[in-house]
Amino acid sequence: MRLPVPPVSGMDLEVIAVGTELLRGHTIDTNTAELAATLGEVGISVARCTTVADDQSQIESTLKDALRRTGLVVLTGGLGPTPDDVTREAVAEVFGVELAVDEEHLERLKSWFADRSGRAMPHSNAKQCEVPLGAELLSNQQGSAPGIWMKGEDGIAILLPGVPHEMKHILHAQVIPRLRDRLLTSDGYVAVSKSLTLRTTAVSESLLADLLAGVESDIAPVTLSYLPTVFGVELCLTALRMPPENAVQVLAAAESTLRERIGKWVYGTGDDDLAAVLLDRLRDRGARLAVAESCTGGLVGARITSVPGSSDVFKGSLVAYDDSVKISQLGVAESSIREYGAVSEEVVLEMAEGVSRRLETDAAIAVTGIAGPSGGSPEKPVGTVYLAAVLNGQTMTSRKIFPGEREWVRNRSAQDALALLWELALR
Amino acid sequence: MRLPVPPVSGMDLEVIAVGTELLRGHTIDTNTAELAATLGEVGISVARCTTVADDQSQIESTLKDALRRTGLVVLTGGLGPTPDDVTREAVAEVFGVELAVDEEHLERLKSWFADRSGRAMPHSNAKQCEVPLGAELLSNQQGSAPGIWMKGEDGIAILLPGVPHEMKHILHAQVIPRLRDRLLTSDGYVAVSKSLTLRTTAVSESLLADLLAGVESDIAPVTLSYLPTVFGVELCLTALRMPPENAVQVLAAAESTLRERIGKWVYGTGDDDLAAVLLDRLRDRGARLAVAESCTGGLVGARITSVPGSSDVFKGSLVAYDDSVKISQLGVAESSIREYGAVSEEVVLEMAEGVSRRLETDAAIAVTGIAGPSGGSPEKPVGTVYLAAVLNGQTMTSRKIFPGEREWVRNRSAQDALALLWELALR
Repeated sequence: MRLPVPPVSGMDLEVIAVGTELLRGHTIDTNTAELAATLGEVGISVARCTTVADDQSQIESTLKDALRRTGLVVLTGGLGPTPDDVTREAVAEVFGVELAVDEEHLERLKSWFADRSGRAMPHSNAKQCEVPLGAELLSNQQGSAPGIWMKGEDGIAILLPGVPHEMKHILHAQVIPRLRDRLLTSDGYVAVSKSLTLRTTAVSESLLADLLAGVESDIAPVTLSYLPTVFGVELCLTALRMPPENAVQVLAAAESTLRERIGKWVYGTGDDDLAAVLLDRLRDRGARLAVAESCTGGLVGARITSVPGSSDVFKGSLVAYDDSVKISQLGVAESSIREYGAVSEEVVLEMAEGVSRRLETDAAIAVTGIAGPSGGSPEKPVGTVYLAAVLNGQTMTSRKIFPGEREWVRNRSAQDALALLWELALR
Repeated sequence: MRLPVPPVSGMDLEVIAVGTELLRGHTIDTNTAELAATLGEVGISVARCTTVADDQSQIESTLKDALRRTGLVVLTGGLGPTPDDVTREAVAEVFGVELAVDEEHLERLKSWFADRSGRAMPHSNAKQCEVPLGAELLSNQQGSAPGIWMKGEDGIAILLPGVPHEMKHILHAQVIPRLRDRLLTSDGYVAVSKSLTLRTTAVSESLLADLLAGVESDIAPVTLSYLPTVFGVELCLTALRMPPENAVQVLAAAESTLRERIGKWVYGTGDDDLAAVLLDRLRDRGARLAVAESCTGGLVGARITSVPGSSDVFKGSLVAYDDSVKISQLGVAESSIREYGAVSEEVVLEMAEGVSRRLETDAAIAVTGIAGPSGGSPEKPVGTVYLAAVLNGQTMTSRKIFPGEREWVRNRSAQDALALLWELALR
């Protein structure tokens, strides 16, 4: 979505992630998401992130461009003790100052090493005490690289270590308070950006888009974005840069507008897990749950038991991967498998009823399907999955064809199996 | 580290990751790492990655800069059916062409929807059939957004969907072959960067580091890095930009040096999954496998069945989350649970033997433990897990205390359960 013009002033910054390992694909950059989420909460937007190599001239040119655009840049990485760490050098060059040893930090680092390891500080760490002249150190309680706050004519560069937990620590303890002060000074109050996610399942992104056609103008200034995941489509509502009360208000209004149109597909908000939502609903009814799985091999049970406290509802499951186990342990009729195939509506229903009987539960879920890559046929291509749900004698079944690879098919199957019982329990 | 001057010529490209959700911190970008690793294998380096919002003018200016620098740009994201998806529009603008409906793709998409859902294509999907004039479509077997290959005077832009498995699929099936052809034409041969990962389990990073002290100089020019994961420590060996034969040679030498020192901990290389390695070993012995799970709730079965073709070895599993199910379905003695507790060596062994008897298999794995956050005691703190393995009458048990959160404990338990049977099957 387009970033709307902020209704009250906030602040933009750019992020530069430094590290050849990021450009080689050895490491996934999690720092940018952490920075963006944390900064967003105090009304600061990340306008752009650039990932560059541990290469001094590349860092310099990228930093110059970023300062020109926003005047405020966070750099992560390249503050270590080894020769490939050159972020300090690049920043000093761009701000036109020398690097100088911070004697106070050098002493602190030496005693840090003595305390931790009883050893002298390795020579290579001395490099971490070099700081661009005029910069302020941001102390790091979790490692040897301090952060650096460098202010010059062209703006501010904030240097943070690349190690995620060190970055996070300095960000929260040192950077956010300083940035908040800046916002307060210039505006009188802090503008926040708040988000609210509605989680849907068993409905396609394009069908939601049809149902929500034109909604953007109804919910403005709140913006809407669609995030398709293996668990369904998430609808993310964002109120950008407002006083906190306003943000809460406009988000609540937007939420109810969306729920009016597509409420039946929404199972939760924020980080809500469909398994947890389902368990709550069954708990309210005093129902116990059992699961029978074939192609998912245990994923449905794993999803359910990932919820702490699931044991008062969930009794257990039977993974009947081999047809002989479907017959011997779940009581599926041999004739059903012969006549309709192990991947069929008849068999999935017998699986659900069988496990419910075996484990003595009121509720049950069953899944059987062809996860691929082989095993498909023209009538039942790879991705064909049958689902069944049982609750106090009522039953529902469903047939799906999921596109995608084996793990995607299996995870979608597990989610839709949970959704089927959730739907049945709504009645 | 600084990128060394390539000994033979390769190719640089830039990546632009499009998505407001990335800049808000709602989503962690995994596509760039996937792209970088895959491109690196055919000798193409990612020189820079820029993350921008779903904002047409920002995409346009970033694309122009990137084309100017390298003439070859991959854009991920912004190809969906919703109004916030504007990557197609931005690319058409930069290349100075119109967007036009690709009628052939429109027909294909309509029948894709009819086949999958029996419904008409939602109107919103029509947008995904618009293509910059002159562009080539890259077919997508896993979703509704095709990739796009756009060539103009200023270079090449390759548009891929943001959904990771769709991106990966088009990258491997369509993009790499086209890029490889280009490299071959211009250079005669391709310089590659190759990596090789040795996967270890049930051994700590620091013990491996001690055993491998000083090995770096023995294996140069190959470099070694340690990547601790929930599955164990991965040892990543990298040979940078060499003719393919050289890379293969030096990596093989480094691998054998490492195996001499720590071979007993290595269960596989590359993407080898311990579950797959274990299944191969059992298959060789003609053994069938059953699983009994408590705290892992189905994760061990899910791991095993994530391996295509697991059905000839794996018969099924019983998830006995409730103690009554341990007794009724696995034949665990009520007195054992009363006397030793459900989390005990006695019970885990009865679980393994019970499931092996029930499902008539030669091999079995069982897990019972306290995943937390509650349920711990001074004698059995949260993280205490008992594992058992059975193979042709031989048994092994193991007690572990895993630090960490619920999901970490459960995933470590599943991995160590597989490792226990792997070790037993080595005898």
